[in-house]
Amino acid sequence: MSDSITVIQVGLGALGRRLTPFLLERPSLQLVGAVDPHPDLAGRDLGEVAGLGRHLGLEIVPDLWEPFSAGQVDVALQTTVSSLSAAALQIQDLLHCGAHVVSSCEELSYPWQTEPYLAAEIDRQARAAGRAVLGVGVNPGFLMDFLPLALTAICRQVRKVTVLRYQDARARRLPFQRKIGAGLSPEQFDARKADGSLRHVGLIESMHMIASRLGWTLDRTQDTVEPIIAEQRVASDDITVEPGQAAGVRQLGLGFVSGEEKIRLDFRASLGEPDVQDTVIIDGDPPLRFTVPDGVNGDIATCALLTNAIPSIIDAEPGLRTMADLPPITWSAE
Amino acid sequence: MSDSITVIQVGLGALGRRLTPFLLERPSLQLVGAVDPHPDLAGRDLGEVAGLGRHLGLEIVPDLWEPFSAGQVDVALQTTVSSLSAAALQIQDLLHCGAHVVSSCEELSYPWQTEPYLAAEIDRQARAAGRAVLGVGVNPGFLMDFLPLALTAICRQVRKVTVLRYQDARARRLPFQRKIGAGLSPEQFDARKADGSLRHVGLIESMHMIASRLGWTLDRTQDTVEPIIAEQRVASDDITVEPGQAAGVRQLGLGFVSGEEKIRLDFRASLGEPDVQDTVIIDGDPPLRFTVPDGVNGDIATCALLTNAIPSIIDAEPGLRTMADLPPITWSAE
Repeated sequence: MSDSITVIQVGLGALGRRLTPFLLERPSLQLVGAVDPHPDLAGRDLGEVAGLGRHLGLEIVPDLWEPFSAGQVDVALQTTVSSLSAAALQIQDLLHCGAHVVSSCEELSYPWQTEPYLAAEIDRQARAAGRAVLGVGVNPGFLMDFLPLALTAICRQVRKVTVLRYQDARARRLPFQRKIGAGLSPEQFDARKADGSLRHVGLIESMHMIASRLGWTLDRTQDTVEPIIAEQRVASDDITVEPGQAAGVRQLGLGFVSGEEKIRLDFRASLGEPDVQDTVIIDGDPPLRFTVPDGVNGDIATCALLTNAIPSIIDAEPGLRTMADLPPITWSAE
Repeated sequence: MSDSITVIQVGLGALGRRLTPFLLERPSLQLVGAVDPHPDLAGRDLGEVAGLGRHLGLEIVPDLWEPFSAGQVDVALQTTVSSLSAAALQIQDLLHCGAHVVSSCEELSYPWQTEPYLAAEIDRQARAAGRAVLGVGVNPGFLMDFLPLALTAICRQVRKVTVLRYQDARARRLPFQRKIGAGLSPEQFDARKADGSLRHVGLIESMHMIASRLGWTLDRTQDTVEPIIAEQRVASDDITVEPGQAAGVRQLGLGFVSGEEKIRLDFRASLGEPDVQDTVIIDGDPPLRFTVPDGVNGDIATCALLTNAIPSIIDAEPGLRTMADLPPITWSAE
C-alpha cells in the first residue's frame, strides 16, 4: 500500500529472528531489508533464517547501506548489542541514511546519566537528520520504568518505587538462559560476573528514568548480582542444571536519595523460578500494588514493543527519545 | 520561586475543594487564584472553603477574568461540569486569557467522536492561543482507557479489552454517592436514569480513546445503566440505604467492531460493593491481567491526575490533547 511504513531489520540474532514474524503480520508495515554481516547469515533468505518455513525473497545483506540504495527506509529496527558504545556507530550510520531507529539496545533506554556524551551526540545527530531514536524493550523500557512511572499519575505522594520481576527462564530464548548463567558452577558464575558478561543490563538505566521524571536526585545507585543456586535438578530444552549449579541470577538495583532507598528493582531469572510475577509497588498516597500474576514473557513483550513503537517513532519529535517522553506506545490492528 | 508555575482553580465544588491541598503541597506550583460564581462561595477565602483550617489570603472571585488581571496565569484547573457543551465556553475564555487548561470535564477526555464540532473548535482555539487543553480524571482518563492502552504495548495481538472497576462508594465524596443513585427507590432510580442525571459519564469516551489508538473502527457502542439493589441495610456517613433501595449503579459500556464485542467496560459503584477491584484484562498474545486488589480511590486519583498533569500540559504541543497522545503523566517531587 502507498502509505505503508518501510522497515529494515539490523541484527538477525535470536531476538531479531523472533522479531521478523511480528513485523510481517502488521498490515501497515512493509519489511524491505535485513542486515547482518555474520558469515553464517549474510546471503541467506530472511524467511529461512527466521524459521518461517518459507522464503520472503529478502536476502540478508552484510552492508548497512545496501537496503537504502533500493529505496526509502522509514524505520530501522536494531537488535544487535546491549552496549551503547557498541551500538552508537551503527545508529549514526542509520540516521545518516535517513532512518528513524528503534533499538533493543538496553543502554539506549535511558542513557542521559550513564552515557551522557553518547546520549548527547546521538540526540544531536538525530535532530540534525530530522529523525528520532528510541531504545526500548520489556526491561529496561517498560516493566521496571515506564509502567511504574505511568502508575504514579494517580498518586498524591510517592515515597518509594519497588518492582519485582521474577521469571522462569525456561520460557525464554537460549541466549537469555546463557546470559543469566544457567548451568554454571558457582566458580564459573563468579568469573562471568567478574568479567561483566553475566549481568542483565538495564537496572541502572531504569532507575535513572524513574528518578528523572519523579524529580528525585539519586546520590547513589547500586546494582548487585548473585547466583540463584539450584537445590534440585532443573532443565530447559537446552540446558540442564544440577543441584549446586546456578539456575540463574538475582540482580538487585537500588537507588538512594539523600541516603534513603527510594527505588528497588528486584530482578530474578532462573530455570524453574518458583514465584513468577511482575509486580509494581508504589509506597505512596494511595499505596498501589499492580501485579501480573503469571508474569510477562520478555521475548514476546520486547518484540511487541519494538514493533508497536514503529508508528510512534515516526510521529515523534526528532532527537533521542525515551519511553518517559513519548506518548504511550500501543498495539495497533493497522 | 521564579520558575514556579502559576495556577488558578475554576470551580470550588466538592472536587475543587478536595483538589486545593494537592496543589498547595507541590513546591513548583503557585496557587494564585480561585474562581466560583456561586453566591455561597464568592468572597470567601479559599483555605476556609477547602476546609484547610487556615486562610490562604486567596479570595474566591466570581469573575473568570479577575485572576488574570493580577498577573500571569500559566494553568487553569477546571473542576466544574461533566458536560463539554457546558464547559466549552469557559475553556474558550481561559484560553483567551492565556492559560493552559486541565479539566475534570469527563466529556473532554476524548471528545473527537462524541462532540466532534466542539472538539475541533476547542482544538482550533487552543492552537491559535498557543496553549494546550486536556480533559483528565481517573475514569475517564486513566483506569479504563490510558492504562489498558499503555499495557497493549507489550502485546503482539489484542483481541479484546475488558476493564472491571468495582468501587465501594462509601469512600467517595457525597456528590459521587448521590450521582450513583445511592438511597433511591427503584422508581426514583429509573426516573433519574430516564432524565440522564444518574449515569456515570465517560464510558463512551473511554471506548473511543481505546478504539482510536488500537486501530479499531467501532460500528456500535452501548452504555447501559441499571441499579444495584441493596439486599441489606448499608450506610455511608451521609446516606443510609434500606434493603430494596438502590445501593448504587452498574454501568456497562460495550464497543463492537464488525458486530463483535471488542471492548467491555464494567463499572460498578455502590455503598458496600463487595468485590472491590480495578482490573484490566487484555485478551491477546500474551493474555494479560493487571489488577489492583483494593481498587483505586477515585477522588484521590482524580485530584492527583489533575495536579500531576500541570507540568505535562505546559510542555505539550498547543491544541486539544488527550491522555492517549501525551507522554505519561507522573507524580513529581518538584
